[in-house]
Amino acid sequence: MRIGMLTAGGDCPGLNAVIRAVVRTSRAEYDTPVLGFEDGWSGLVDDSAVSLYDDEDIDRLLLRGGTVLGTGRLNPDTLRDSLPQIKRTLERHAIDVLIAIGGDGTLTAANWLHDNGVPVVGVPKTIDNDVAATDYTFGFDTAVSVAADAIDRLHTTAESHERVMLVEVMGRHAGWIALHAGLAAGAHMIVIPEVPFDIDYVCKVMKRRFQMGENYGICVVAEGATPAEGSSMTIDEGEIDQFGHQVFTGVANAMAVEIKERLDRDVRTTVLGHTQRGGTPTSRDRVLATRYGVHAAHLANSGKHGVFVALRGEDIVPLPIADAISRLKTVPVEMYDEAASLFG
Amino acid sequence: MRIGMLTAGGDCPGLNAVIRAVVRTSRAEYDTPVLGFEDGWSGLVDDSAVSLYDDEDIDRLLLRGGTVLGTGRLNPDTLRDSLPQIKRTLERHAIDVLIAIGGDGTLTAANWLHDNGVPVVGVPKTIDNDVAATDYTFGFDTAVSVAADAIDRLHTTAESHERVMLVEVMGRHAGWIALHAGLAAGAHMIVIPEVPFDIDYVCKVMKRRFQMGENYGICVVAEGATPAEGSSMTIDEGEIDQFGHQVFTGVANAMAVEIKERLDRDVRTTVLGHTQRGGTPTSRDRVLATRYGVHAAHLANSGKHGVFVALRGEDIVPLPIADAISRLKTVPVEMYDEAASLFG
Amino acid sequence: MRIGMLTAGGDCPGLNAVIRAVVRTSRAEYDTPVLGFEDGWSGLVDDSAVSLYDDEDIDRLLLRGGTVLGTGRLNPDTLRDSLPQIKRTLERHAIDVLIAIGGDGTLTAANWLHDNGVPVVGVPKTIDNDVAATDYTFGFDTAVSVAADAIDRLHTTAESHERVMLVEVMGRHAGWIALHAGLAAGAHMIVIPEVPFDIDYVCKVMKRRFQMGENYGICVVAEGATPAEGSSMTIDEGEIDQFGHQVFTGVANAMAVEIKERLDRDVRTTVLGHTQRGGTPTSRDRVLATRYGVHAAHLANSGKHGVFVALRGEDIVPLPIADAISRLKTVPVEMYDEAASLFG
Amino acid sequence: MRIGMLTAGGDCPGLNAVIRAVVRTSRAEYDTPVLGFEDGWSGLVDDSAVSLYDDEDIDRLLLRGGTVLGTGRLNPDTLRDSLPQIKRTLERHAIDVLIAIGGDGTLTAANWLHDNGVPVVGVPKTIDNDVAATDYTFGFDTAVSVAADAIDRLHTTAESHERVMLVEVMGRHAGWIALHAGLAAGAHMIVIPEVPFDIDYVCKVMKRRFQMGENYGICVVAEGATPAEGSSMTIDEGEIDQFGHQVFTGVANAMAVEIKERLDRDVRTTVLGHTQRGGTPTSRDRVLATRYGVHAAHLANSGKHGVFVALRGEDIVPLPIADAISRLKTVPVEMYDEAASLFG
Repeated sequence: MRIGMLTAGGDCPGLNAVIRAVVRTSRAEYDTPVLGFEDGWSGLVDDSAVSLYDDEDIDRLLLRGGTVLGTGRLNPDTLRDSLPQIKRTLERHAIDVLIAIGGDGTLTAANWLHDNGVPVVGVPKTIDNDVAATDYTFGFDTAVSVAADAIDRLHTTAESHERVMLVEVMGRHAGWIALHAGLAAGAHMIVIPEVPFDIDYVCKVMKRRFQMGENYGICVVAEGATPAEGSSMTIDEGEIDQFGHQVFTGVANAMAVEIKERLDRDVRTTVLGHTQRGGTPTSRDRVLATRYGVHAAHLANSGKHGVFVALRGEDIVPLPIADAISRLKTVPVEMYDEAASLFG
Repeated sequence: MRIGMLTAGGDCPGLNAVIRAVVRTSRAEYDTPVLGFEDGWSGLVDDSAVSLYDDEDIDRLLLRGGTVLGTGRLNPDTLRDSLPQIKRTLERHAIDVLIAIGGDGTLTAANWLHDNGVPVVGVPKTIDNDVAATDYTFGFDTAVSVAADAIDRLHTTAESHERVMLVEVMGRHAGWIALHAGLAAGAHMIVIPEVPFDIDYVCKVMKRRFQMGENYGICVVAEGATPAEGSSMTIDEGEIDQFGHQVFTGVANAMAVEIKERLDRDVRTTVLGHTQRGGTPTSRDRVLATRYGVHAAHLANSGKHGVFVALRGEDIVPLPIADAISRLKTVPVEMYDEAASLFG
Repeated sequence: MRIGMLTAGGDCPGLNAVIRAVVRTSRAEYDTPVLGFEDGWSGLVDDSAVSLYDDEDIDRLLLRGGTVLGTGRLNPDTLRDSLPQIKRTLERHAIDVLIAIGGDGTLTAANWLHDNGVPVVGVPKTIDNDVAATDYTFGFDTAVSVAADAIDRLHTTAESHERVMLVEVMGRHAGWIALHAGLAAGAHMIVIPEVPFDIDYVCKVMKRRFQMGENYGICVVAEGATPAEGSSMTIDEGEIDQFGHQVFTGVANAMAVEIKERLDRDVRTTVLGHTQRGGTPTSRDRVLATRYGVHAAHLANSGKHGVFVALRGEDIVPLPIADAISRLKTVPVEMYDEAASLFG
Repeated sequence: MRIGMLTAGGDCPGLNAVIRAVVRTSRAEYDTPVLGFEDGWSGLVDDSAVSLYDDEDIDRLLLRGGTVLGTGRLNPDTLRDSLPQIKRTLERHAIDVLIAIGGDGTLTAANWLHDNGVPVVGVPKTIDNDVAATDYTFGFDTAVSVAADAIDRLHTTAESHERVMLVEVMGRHAGWIALHAGLAAGAHMIVIPEVPFDIDYVCKVMKRRFQMGENYGICVVAEGATPAEGSSMTIDEGEIDQFGHQVFTGVANAMAVEIKERLDRDVRTTVLGHTQRGGTPTSRDRVLATRYGVHAAHLANSGKHGVFVALRGEDIVPLPIADAISRLKTVPVEMYDEAASLFG
């Protein structure tokens, strides 16, 4: 038995913790060698591989952000066209099963490969927490924690200078980070992609704060938030990149212009950016990533394929990969309404 | 409508976040006044109360550890004998429903009061994560995070000095903190109350590390861990305190003596103690505590009693208080075995 | 004896710690009442004052970012024109001495007031660490720590995606934050205002890294950095605001365009912004701010005016305010060269 | 030219940052190979050496606590008897100069070796900040930061439970950590070795707090603190270990017994222990350690021996090693008195 492993898609704290757990469990419990492919799917296509041993270097990965295997994105068409090369690489190294760690795009590719005769076990990865069928994904808690810490810091600056402060956080299609970081850091308003916002309502909430004697306001904005149709504000639509993803540009900045105009207050924007997806994972993400890795190793070593590992309550369970990619997990409107009790 | 609220039992990060969310939701959504009783149940017995307003001071509680209401423990017999006083206090303030935030003891008392005609909504609280029927309780993530940070720091000291390091963490009856902090910080051995340990096995794992060329080892010990019967080590049984709780004393220190003798290595013990239960909650605990508070406020304001709020997957659901106290939630043996893949 | 106090200029972690120490020391050691003026100099001009007591609320300020007194900037001409109002306010409250906490502009104003018959004790404040005559100012260590944490996180993202990452930090006229955060976080290149940069040299250092087999590079950029004259890159000069300060816009973004073109690599920019100046101060800044406050209180209460508190080695010493404002403290070229040993 | 390097004495955050800076500077600026000796002086005696290259592994050391070279203590007599072996090892590897990183004991040994013909450059290291002739040593800021964070957490627990909390921190002969951590975390009392304490005075300060309406108190205790002669409390004298150091045992616990008796309050003790000396250094310690390393490398490579690197204000300067060991740097009484303004 030999296992192959790769990480694909965006960087995410906890990737290395999964790698470590897969290698340690496979070597210690099954004596199975693990081969890592570099830079995502392209390492599999081009056969760029490295042996992973259960040594001190692997052990230290637990706290390290990023992925020692490197990562990358591959156009789905390119992947399909490369099936022969992929199979050849797997045969050359006598790989029995591939563990693919990645987000929606990676799991979609993994599912297609599985349907085309490549045994795969999936590990879901997304900062955004928007993979269906699992309660949480690792990296999300770290992103929320980094964002909440930053918002905590902005409170005092906003207050000292009597400002409205807009904080743009990650979340193109789902507002999980905005919702959790906003709740954790006591934001006075949160806007998310799932609930198009009315800029007049946002201004009303801020104005009410000032009328109540408060002298500042914090609004957390998911990068994918959009104004409601028919509302008094529009933003430019972003372009579509080569992977079919919309490129978002500056909803928080656009909101700042409008709020400044309507409230005649000092308004500032902070875009948190890449710091949300790098660095040492929180303890929770290390536990979740480690548990995913241990379970993925057990599944791979016992011949269970076409599944991915999912968190359900406190249990890690194997589910068909198709379940992960069937739909995007977005914030339910009731959960947003629940948070809205605390706006203002 | 008027709501009473109290916090009882041990200190726990997130108590203030619950208080804030209850007050803000009740005042903003229902215009319901909230009265806090001080120092746990005794504030209710002795009628020591304070009005809680939706102002800046309440808002700042989100990040503050501890509880502004104070806390305390009350002997169950005393509580029962005080039912008349408790009812009198509630009548005097025209309280319609009491929100009781606490652990197993508090929820048991809340259930008994509910059975005796006092409308109660419960909010589960325990650092130890051992309340049944809810996936997680707030405070637990903070405790794990503090413990994991400490263990991260001990790694380098242990390594530089070639030591075996024992770290005693909280957990009298359940090993959740030990298990999660140990996994998060890459401990080489974890012992928990649910799985009595064999000191010879612990030494064997450490010895194997030294034979493999490693020069140190970290073992995380839950304070309630006990040696397996018939194993070659015993520890003094702790006394029983006035609340019927066993007082634990020094299992890590007792283990250190045995390991030193068997391995002839430098062995040190660190007892993390109270730092695990104080201070600013993690962002996750702030979110969970806030959501509990919002839901408890909605339940109390809509006349739903005899229930407590529980986390199930990503949802907060109301469950009968009796479900919370029916059993202690302990670490399943399979989950411990899963972690054991990474020992050594 | 009565003391007045105000905070002016930009927000800075540790302002509240100074306020707390002044109040506690004055009340406990001298029984002297302290009056705070709100929103900087304008609180003195408009007589907006608040009594500060040695109570629990003051005590809690130690860990809180920002300033409870509020802050603001005042045009120097306006200040001069307002001397009569300022004197009237001080007389009305029978203030014997004013403690002014602020940066270069504030200390210049304080010095002018002192020369015009207003007894003043100064406390230097600047995130940027560019106040002459004191080794360090509080707020600087927090800003460096926040920036270094962010850069630590960017390392793994840059590495996983094989990018050049530019991180813009605060520092309009002095590169202290860039230099210290860059050294602390192992940046591969640092550019500061004191040493105009040659974009070709920056690219050369990055290119050398890639040739040595590394796959990413991090360059820390002070917001006030400028290209060397005659070098192959220019940037737009910023405007001058109403206080005579240059408004900087986007040197890191301008560099990114050039580097991308020359290296044909993925280049990203992160602008850290306001998070560097808010939030809980580091322990070091709390100690320094507290010591400044204690000493300022002793000076004010013993009738020593026209001085500010400065850190020299491990001692806090009083120096003439004029010494603080005589020159900007910039990074010595030798110190930059020392750091350059570690570039690449 | 060839450089040897070793780390000796207790673990200290920043040791690896010095090692990294020495290697990178020596290799990049002078093309000088650096050899590391393992486990302190014994690596030199027994010739246990490892080549250190300017590669990715060295670069990553910046954030890592502990020392990759390992450390150890050597009895001074043993060191003296081993001079011939030491000289033989240095000759065998053609070492021109030895960089010794360590505390008082290590620098004393380094000075003796220098007097006996071994060219040495010293780098001062001590958590306790008690090396004379340098303003600060790396590791100290990290220790203070860890201790202050812990005390921050204990505040809320002490307050919720209305307790007196004693926190024992490191500091056998000097109270720097206790003083700084106590000031940073707003302790209500601090006791240090330099100023023998009167337990009645400690109790008086705590009692006054309770009389003023506060319900808890925090007292920070340096492990080497001792009761004043003639005061109403004594503690057992610790033993003397093989290195001539006194072994301290439990001053905080002894104080707790006395305070409990006198105040009839719940009193608890937390001993912070080893967590203060491990783990990732603060950004400040990384900067200081890096600057020490760069300067030590320049000194060694330019043939300046018999000196150690010291921080004076903002400058790193070379001083005779004898200056470092001539006296212990303790907290001046005036600095303690300054802090005492804030007790209670």
